[in-house]
Order: sequence, then structure tokens, then C-alpha cells
Amino acid sequence: MDKKLTYRLATSDDLVDIVRMLADDELGSKRERFEEPLPQSYIKAFVDIARDPHQELTVVEEEGEIIGVFQLTFIQYLTYQGGIRAQIEGVRVEASHRGKGYGKKIFEYAIDRARHRGAHLLQLTTDKQRPEAIEFYEALGFVASHEGMKMHF
Amino acid sequence: MDKKLTYRLATSDDLVDIVRMLADDELGSKRERFEEPLPQSYIKAFVDIARDPHQELTVVEEEGEIIGVFQLTFIQYLTYQGGIRAQIEGVRVEASHRGKGYGKKIFEYAIDRARHRGAHLLQLTTDKQRPEAIEFYEALGFVASHEGMKMHF
Repeated sequence: MDKKLTYRLATSDDLVDIVRMLADDELGSKRERFEEPLPQSYIKAFVDIARDPHQELTVVEEEGEIIGVFQLTFIQYLTYQGGIRAQIEGVRVEASHRGKGYGKKIFEYAIDRARHRGAHLLQLTTDKQRPEAIEFYEALGFVASHEGMKMHF
Repeated sequence: MDKKLTYRLATSDDLVDIVRMLADDELGSKRERFEEPLPQSYIKAFVDIARDPHQELTVVEEEGEIIGVFQLTFIQYLTYQGGIRAQIEGVRVEASHRGKGYGKKIFEYAIDRARHRGAHLLQLTTDKQRPEAIEFYEALGFVASHEGMKMHF
């Protein structure tokens, strides 16, 4: 991985590539529905994300080809004297590019971006069934100080 | 706690009460700065929250008196076929009202509200140093399936 990565906000033209990456994953394959044309629910969601100044859905390119995606959300709270938290979700690296250090590069970029927008904290939750992911995040400097609790409806 | 609780979006007139509650807590007392007039950072944060259609900062009243607060954020993702997640943060009950079942009532309301807005999931993170909080959330139906990882800048 010597090539330069570039980062830009996703456009609607990227949506097929993004959903393909989201679905191409053990957990993702159960949750997503990748078909062309894309289910309308993805398009509707994209429009909402793209319009929201607190959201950044970012694609990662290498030589003009999309090889990764992530979503940063900047949440304004009153806590921490009116602080903004950055939250990262939906990080995926193209299957053919995994295990080669792309994830680390992409997270370093996302961390810089969160700082740049004035967040005092970057947070994420990660499934306890993926111990290798937890180690990856700890190596980046994240601390597993909290329980991530979910209630599915 | 037989009296009826009412819920409404916070206004700027509620901000002093809210920040007082946020600061009146073991962790909050280290993070917040409660003084009158309020530090400008809280006012700026409130304006951003109040303008954001994805945020609901809600106060809880009993007989016209504010006895609780919480913040729900509705985050649009592409994952889960373009699903919306509700996230709850900054839940506080007035010190004189703690240990009397208010927290449970407030969470039941927040869960209903999250469903009503079409979220497929309600999530939160809770500090591992508060085991009693984890039990409280589990009793409500939350599952501690994830690690909540934080990176403070």
C-alpha cells in the first residue's frame, strides 16, 4: 500500500459501490440488500445524510477507484460544557484490499478530521464478537471504557 | 412517584436548570461548569441542538417543575438498509428525585419516542465504572453486545 489515498464526500453516483461494500461482510451480508437498482431505502437515507451538515459520508479512493467508506457524525451535546462528539460508523474496506494497512490509514484520516472539526472526542462501538477489531482500535488509541448497549426494535 | 410526568422539548429558559442537573453528578461535577450567567459555550451548544431536526433535548416535568432531562439523537445511516438509529445521552434526574423510579419512567418514554420516530434501534454507552447503571439498562431490555470505545483529544 504505497499509493496515495484520497478522501472526498460521497455523491449519489458512489452509492452502488458503497452499498456493495457494506453488504460484503459477515455481519453486513445478513443486514443489507445489495441489488441493482438499489432498494429505495438506501437512496432516501443517502439524501438525508448528504443534506445534514452534521454528517460526513466519506469515500476513500486509490487511483480513482473507491476502496473504502466511513461515516462520521458530529453530535452537539450540552455535556462537556457544550462539546461536540464525533462518532464513526459504517467503516468498510474493499474485500480485495483488507489486511494491508488501509484500515489504519483511513482511521488516521478520520481522527484528524474529527479533531479538525473541533470534536473533543471520537467514539465508536464495536461488536464484542470481533476481538481482533477491539485490538485494532486499542492500537489506534481508543479505550474500551464503556459498555455499548443496544436495544433492537 | 404517583404524579404524572410531562415531556417537552427544552427551551432556552430551561438551560440553567439543565446545566445544574448535568453538573450535579459525580462525573458531571468534573466536566461541567455551572455558574450564572451560564458559560457561553452552553448557550451556543443549545442553539445548535434546538435548530437540528435530528436532535431532541427533552425536559421532564412534574407539577410544572423540571425534574429530569435527556437528549435523543436520530442518526441516519446507510447500514440496515438505510436505517435510523436513536441514541440517548445526557440523561439526568434531579438529585432529590433519584432512586424513586423516575429513571425507569423516563427511559420508557424515550424508548417509545425512538420507536415513534421510526428508529430500528436505540443505543447508548455507559461507563464500565457504573455497574449499577449497566444492570438498570439490562432490566430495561438493552443488551451489552458492544464495546464502547472512546478517544479523548
